[in-house]
Amino acid sequence: MQIDKNDDFFMRVALSEAQKAAEMGEIPVGAVLVLENKIIAKAHNQTQLLNDSTAHAEMLCITAACNNLGSKYLTNSTLYITLEPCIMCAGAIKWAQISNIIYGASDLKGGFTTFLKSGIYSEKIKINSNILQEECSEILKKFFKGKR
Amino acid sequence: MQIDKNDDFFMRVALSEAQKAAEMGEIPVGAVLVLENKIIAKAHNQTQLLNDSTAHAEMLCITAACNNLGSKYLTNSTLYITLEPCIMCAGAIKWAQISNIIYGASDLKGGFTTFLKSGIYSEKIKINSNILQEECSEILKKFFKGKR
Repeated sequence: MQIDKNDDFFMRVALSEAQKAAEMGEIPVGAVLVLENKIIAKAHNQTQLLNDSTAHAEMLCITAACNNLGSKYLTNSTLYITLEPCIMCAGAIKWAQISNIIYGASDLKGGFTTFLKSGIYSEKIKINSNILQEECSEILKKFFKGKR
Repeated sequence: MQIDKNDDFFMRVALSEAQKAAEMGEIPVGAVLVLENKIIAKAHNQTQLLNDSTAHAEMLCITAACNNLGSKYLTNSTLYITLEPCIMCAGAIKWAQISNIIYGASDLKGGFTTFLKSGIYSEKIKINSNILQEECSEILKKFFKGKR
């Protein structure tokens, strides 16, 4: 995929969302939706606060972006996520017709690439997992270390 | 799995939710969450009304049930759905720790069984796709026939 010079910047915004989650005792994952180099929505995991196991950063970010744009499709947008999406979020990304997925840390245990047969996304959807991998992993490791 | 004598009843409630969706011009899918033979939440697809491509019947039903019970886990509950869940909803069902999934119509094109490798659910989760299959298919066929 084409590497946008702003990928680093937007992933740092996602990381700051993850940091907000950590400070609230939530598993620190952040997401930012970008369209034409503008942030349309950003969110962090709120499963504890909302008492809702579906309130992942990506889900909240997609719903907020749909509200902001008044559209249920987010075509041509890029979703930056600090952690590889789970299958629920991978499905939501598909339904919302997001065009680019960029994630930091991989999730070998719960990530969508572990569970899915190839082929849920069309060829048009680009996936990049090479932006700020270390920082995105570190914030999670630190959180879970503090929990033990 | 153990066939509950009330499966037919609860699936008919899900079907009446699907019917509400149809009347609003939404793809007619309904969901009902049951715990100890009581309906905790019911919902229908609202992607058009909410302008949110994640607003599937199952997602709305799970969030409503979590709110009602004040818990992000729905252990021991049964989710009745008129259509086989997509991968987003299958993931949400997993996160919410729903114990039984009962669906009517199969979805060979978009259903989770088409896309997932085996193994996202633990052995404890029971899946039954033999309740009111025909009626659940029929309401969808009728809707799409009307759209053409």
